[in-house]
Amino acid sequence: MRITLCGGTGDIGEGLALRFAYDTDHEILIGSRDPEKARTKAAEYETELDSRGIETTIKGFENAMAADRADVVVLAVPPYHVRDTVESISDRLDSETILVSPAVGMQREKSGLHYNRPSAGSVTAMVAETAPEDVPIVGAFHSLSADKLANLDIALDEDTLLVGDDEDALDIVQLLAEGIEGLRTLYAGPLANAAEVESLTPLLINLAIHNDLHDVGVRFE
Amino acid sequence: MRITLCGGTGDIGEGLALRFAYDTDHEILIGSRDPEKARTKAAEYETELDSRGIETTIKGFENAMAADRADVVVLAVPPYHVRDTVESISDRLDSETILVSPAVGMQREKSGLHYNRPSAGSVTAMVAETAPEDVPIVGAFHSLSADKLANLDIALDEDTLLVGDDEDALDIVQLLAEGIEGLRTLYAGPLANAAEVESLTPLLINLAIHNDLHDVGVRFE
Repeated sequence: MRITLCGGTGDIGEGLALRFAYDTDHEILIGSRDPEKARTKAAEYETELDSRGIETTIKGFENAMAADRADVVVLAVPPYHVRDTVESISDRLDSETILVSPAVGMQREKSGLHYNRPSAGSVTAMVAETAPEDVPIVGAFHSLSADKLANLDIALDEDTLLVGDDEDALDIVQLLAEGIEGLRTLYAGPLANAAEVESLTPLLINLAIHNDLHDVGVRFE
Repeated sequence: MRITLCGGTGDIGEGLALRFAYDTDHEILIGSRDPEKARTKAAEYETELDSRGIETTIKGFENAMAADRADVVVLAVPPYHVRDTVESISDRLDSETILVSPAVGMQREKSGLHYNRPSAGSVTAMVAETAPEDVPIVGAFHSLSADKLANLDIALDEDTLLVGDDEDALDIVQLLAEGIEGLRTLYAGPLANAAEVESLTPLLINLAIHNDLHDVGVRFE
């Protein structure tokens, strides 16, 4: 498959790009608002993978160009750029492109991180509101530590939760996510359940801070 | 310690009563609005424990009577009874009684269970609002399956998250919770972080429904 990481120059984009390239044979494209930055980062990822014996080509483009003809587009951008990013790539999306939302709105207060619920109900719901109606949306990868993903020396052993209304799209994202070694997907229900899934991320960060758990992940069993 | 389970005749109360009595030497008291019901259930728990070779006395009382001179009072009541219950036991509480809140407000919709955030910010915060000011409050036990707790044949292996502002109270609840075999506590920060902890419960139920995970628990690592 052709996987585009919009905002693939950021932390979570880097982590997913490296894991997808390391563990799977998918074609990985890095998107950014700045195509030059996308190319530079893509080259960095290639170098990192090459140092681990993985010869692969990762290309960088401006977001819309990167999203063009992708099978899956991951919106690896901060929550406040999600709407802009979806709008900027909208005319490259259709019912054959799965849009994946991993972003979580959080607010830092003295007590810790808090879930900052968007008026749409969740970031994933905001993506669904903004994207063309026929584009299937899946929420995924919310609870993964970007640092842990990007460090290929660390073996993963954790769950990622999927939400979505389109079964075929869910199946494809499950396949994609479970292509990453040590990652198991669980289905958390329709898009309407995204807020509870997104709320898990500030909780994980609070737990990491207070219990000295580095790059904490979650397992449900 | 003397541990009172207000609403100890309900599901989560039963589960905690059995585990505390089975795994620890604490004195367990069952509270209910109906003292007769409390006595009947307490006798049932004694019979269950006796059948497993544990000889113990569990007494049942009306909630306020049960809370009197307790070291820890667990509010094992549904969220819509939390305020009433705290009010009904208020004059039995003081700075030496730790009030533990495990309740979670949830709303069932077609999509699944949703976190129903009280106007206080969380059920735990609502308890803090209602209780006398000097009573230390700890949120705990939210994510535990009542059925799994109550079935002593099942070995636990999961985390429970604590929130609270009073360090001594947190230490005591940690000791109490980790007295239950297979339960690990993690500190999720001050009371202000309770909403994210409580939100985990509807998520767990949604995951159980959609992934055929019976009595699902959570581990952070």
